[in-house]
Amino acid sequence: MSERIRVAVLGAAGRMGQTVVRAVQEAPDLELVAAVDADADLSVVVDAGAQVAVDFTVPSATEGNVHALVDAGVHLVVGTTGWDDESLARVRDHLADRPGVGVLVAPNFALGAVLAMAFAARAARWFESVEVIELHHPDKVDAPSGTAHHTATAIAAARAAAALGPVPDATTQALDGARGADVEGVRVHSVRLRGLVAHEEILLGNAGEQLTIRHDSFDRVSFMPGVLLAVRQVGSRPGLTVGLEQLLDLA
Amino acid sequence: MSERIRVAVLGAAGRMGQTVVRAVQEAPDLELVAAVDADADLSVVVDAGAQVAVDFTVPSATEGNVHALVDAGVHLVVGTTGWDDESLARVRDHLADRPGVGVLVAPNFALGAVLAMAFAARAARWFESVEVIELHHPDKVDAPSGTAHHTATAIAAARAAAALGPVPDATTQALDGARGADVEGVRVHSVRLRGLVAHEEILLGNAGEQLTIRHDSFDRVSFMPGVLLAVRQVGSRPGLTVGLEQLLDLA
Amino acid sequence: MSERIRVAVLGAAGRMGQTVVRAVQEAPDLELVAAVDADADLSVVVDAGAQVAVDFTVPSATEGNVHALVDAGVHLVVGTTGWDDESLARVRDHLADRPGVGVLVAPNFALGAVLAMAFAARAARWFESVEVIELHHPDKVDAPSGTAHHTATAIAAARAAAALGPVPDATTQALDGARGADVEGVRVHSVRLRGLVAHEEILLGNAGEQLTIRHDSFDRVSFMPGVLLAVRQVGSRPGLTVGLEQLLDLA
Amino acid sequence: MSERIRVAVLGAAGRMGQTVVRAVQEAPDLELVAAVDADADLSVVVDAGAQVAVDFTVPSATEGNVHALVDAGVHLVVGTTGWDDESLARVRDHLADRPGVGVLVAPNFALGAVLAMAFAARAARWFESVEVIELHHPDKVDAPSGTAHHTATAIAAARAAAALGPVPDATTQALDGARGADVEGVRVHSVRLRGLVAHEEILLGNAGEQLTIRHDSFDRVSFMPGVLLAVRQVGSRPGLTVGLEQLLDLA
Repeated sequence: MSERIRVAVLGAAGRMGQTVVRAVQEAPDLELVAAVDADADLSVVVDAGAQVAVDFTVPSATEGNVHALVDAGVHLVVGTTGWDDESLARVRDHLADRPGVGVLVAPNFALGAVLAMAFAARAARWFESVEVIELHHPDKVDAPSGTAHHTATAIAAARAAAALGPVPDATTQALDGARGADVEGVRVHSVRLRGLVAHEEILLGNAGEQLTIRHDSFDRVSFMPGVLLAVRQVGSRPGLTVGLEQLLDLA
Repeated sequence: MSERIRVAVLGAAGRMGQTVVRAVQEAPDLELVAAVDADADLSVVVDAGAQVAVDFTVPSATEGNVHALVDAGVHLVVGTTGWDDESLARVRDHLADRPGVGVLVAPNFALGAVLAMAFAARAARWFESVEVIELHHPDKVDAPSGTAHHTATAIAAARAAAALGPVPDATTQALDGARGADVEGVRVHSVRLRGLVAHEEILLGNAGEQLTIRHDSFDRVSFMPGVLLAVRQVGSRPGLTVGLEQLLDLA
Repeated sequence: MSERIRVAVLGAAGRMGQTVVRAVQEAPDLELVAAVDADADLSVVVDAGAQVAVDFTVPSATEGNVHALVDAGVHLVVGTTGWDDESLARVRDHLADRPGVGVLVAPNFALGAVLAMAFAARAARWFESVEVIELHHPDKVDAPSGTAHHTATAIAAARAAAALGPVPDATTQALDGARGADVEGVRVHSVRLRGLVAHEEILLGNAGEQLTIRHDSFDRVSFMPGVLLAVRQVGSRPGLTVGLEQLLDLA
Repeated sequence: MSERIRVAVLGAAGRMGQTVVRAVQEAPDLELVAAVDADADLSVVVDAGAQVAVDFTVPSATEGNVHALVDAGVHLVVGTTGWDDESLARVRDHLADRPGVGVLVAPNFALGAVLAMAFAARAARWFESVEVIELHHPDKVDAPSGTAHHTATAIAAARAAAALGPVPDATTQALDGARGADVEGVRVHSVRLRGLVAHEEILLGNAGEQLTIRHDSFDRVSFMPGVLLAVRQVGSRPGLTVGLEQLLDLA
């Protein structure tokens, strides 16, 4: 019988952390060996013999956690926000000295959201028009959402690579804001509605046809299949992997 | 056997006019007795014995047409744009002197669009949040569409009448335009996409639920059932009627 | 200052009952005076001076509860399932002897679901085609849902009243089940999907246009505005009222 | 300056053929050298020096056309229906003797429809639940549509390859047809509605999330970008290619 993977959860008291703890406990092929707070001493994790650590802590702690555990030979799955090109580069450099250790950093673990974004980017070059609508609960403070911004940027890059020009738009008279935000030439609309959680819709149009890709996130349990997939695969993916889509066999 | 209603079409050479001519010809209970250009001499219409005239001409001609035909005792169904409170008031005054003559002026003859707007206005008082998305082909020059603007205004009036406060919205950081246009406190988003014709979606939200009302207009034939309904009813509705919804038995 | 309405909850230990208890406690104009189990002795409710009782118990208990509390002069809001024409008639008869007492029985307290159904019934006579899609979580045992069945029946009645014939359908070769269930001539399709809660979509079509009315229920908190509305109004509506739509000023 | 590709259209009098003729005439990099009826003598095509022939003829003619033009060294883009594994195998064999000649046979040239199907098949393994809804005008005689059937089959194959079991479904009481048609374990629902053309929606669900992929086809002009893409690429793809998705760089 195959051994269970020994897993630690960092930030185990947070909302995402608690959900990850439960998901690991319920997975028959995983064993929870440590569950620690965001600011905990990581020697607990190492002493517990964790093979993989899942980090849902805070931006100020996550990079330190990663370097410390890479030094200890522990693989990492990181969902904490705040990573940028420089901090990712420092991890990549560090991993060059630690062959065999894998780190996966992903801004989004909802499989459906990651697939929606990947499909939108692949479809973009085949359509004359494209716009993005994201819909969230009205307590959200930023607009558009990070996911929608990221999606629009990926679409814009795909259009540029295919040498498509700007999308057609004859608008000459508009109320302020009617046409949405302009993210690298892609219009993004943010709806805020009581009752919603987190939703994104990408609309692509050609003469005579429309392709719509929509993701609805109703609950943070939707992140768990992605987190567990990453936990299971990160040990066999040495080096730095950015984005869950790398694990989804989309080719 | 009942007599057929004798119908004239004004603006018969235009795109809407041509469609109305065909629809009248195909209706077994209607008889086309005149089809004239937008700038035609209306004595043709009167001499042909028209009981009802349908006006899809141009803003500069429509008010003159209406007053001339009201004098001649011809009922009117008017789909031409450009009417405002003053011009409508002049028709109402004129009709006070011509009891028995009916005039119906409607900005939209698509039954579905009219119903969508009426339902949105009735539902609005029961929901904490509401937003409007309209989607059109990219050759449209104005944003938002007249229909969406009208819908938002009706929703705002219904909310005010129910003493609802502003919709909840915690947004503090937004890209310019992300949250749409503000029409009397109702956010309206305008999508422009090749392949689309004219579409409107009203989203209403409460804790735990969402109500969505959507209308898709694919072709101007969708206006014909509304035009024919008006032609059949205008003779039994003396005075001025504004809006097709008055004919739809929504109570 | 106006007095708060004194409210009892029957079936307070059930999932709906618990949610109602919380909602009443949080409403500033309501006072929770009793919260009892489905099989409790109702003298507690009467002794507590309840003016309105909310019944979310079980089919075997609800009719007895209603008659007992009507005798005691307590108004009732009933969300328990299992009522039919005969049991409703018995309540109506009883109330004829108790002028001033009001009972509201409703199969659905989600405002959006009730509005969707009412709008679909009103729109139906204006469209050549109509179909219903309902979507639920895959643990549901019956298909179609009661709400969808009820919606289809109301649509069929509206079509019959308008003397519309059968919907157009040229299908001659179909896989078993492809065209859905036939509910009095209206096709109803039941989708079962992990992640969903309870959703209904009514599609209405004419040449060149489509009207879609959709309700999404994400959580049972969505029933609370409807329950509280009924609690506030039932005291001023003597006799039997069936259906929340009677309270929604839809005319 | 690069030479224009010399194109012939077979079945040029049919509805699709006429649309292809116009599209080729309007494309600056293509030259229409022949446009012939479905039963025409193909020597005209060869004599006109066609490099690529587009076949939208009839099932009884298309296979003969392909073999005759392969013999003449003309590349083919085939949209006619009626091809099966045996007839495709005969073309593959024939092309083995004619290196350098390319034939592309595709059941669907709408880029959006092809992408929707490809994305659905790739996403399927990551979701617990999946169902397909297709919606068409009510004059369609078969249900479900060929596209929906094909989509469901591809999804079923992807689920089987990932060793997913059956979709969850607790239904024990259902009206006949409510749960749709069963296509290799995937439920498919067929809606027929006046006003619609051809639409397909794939719903995928996990706990807490839903991914929806939808394609709307409003007009047969939507097939033209796919046809022209095939015309431009078939000359550099010797042998038999089945399905437009092979040309879309989806990896």
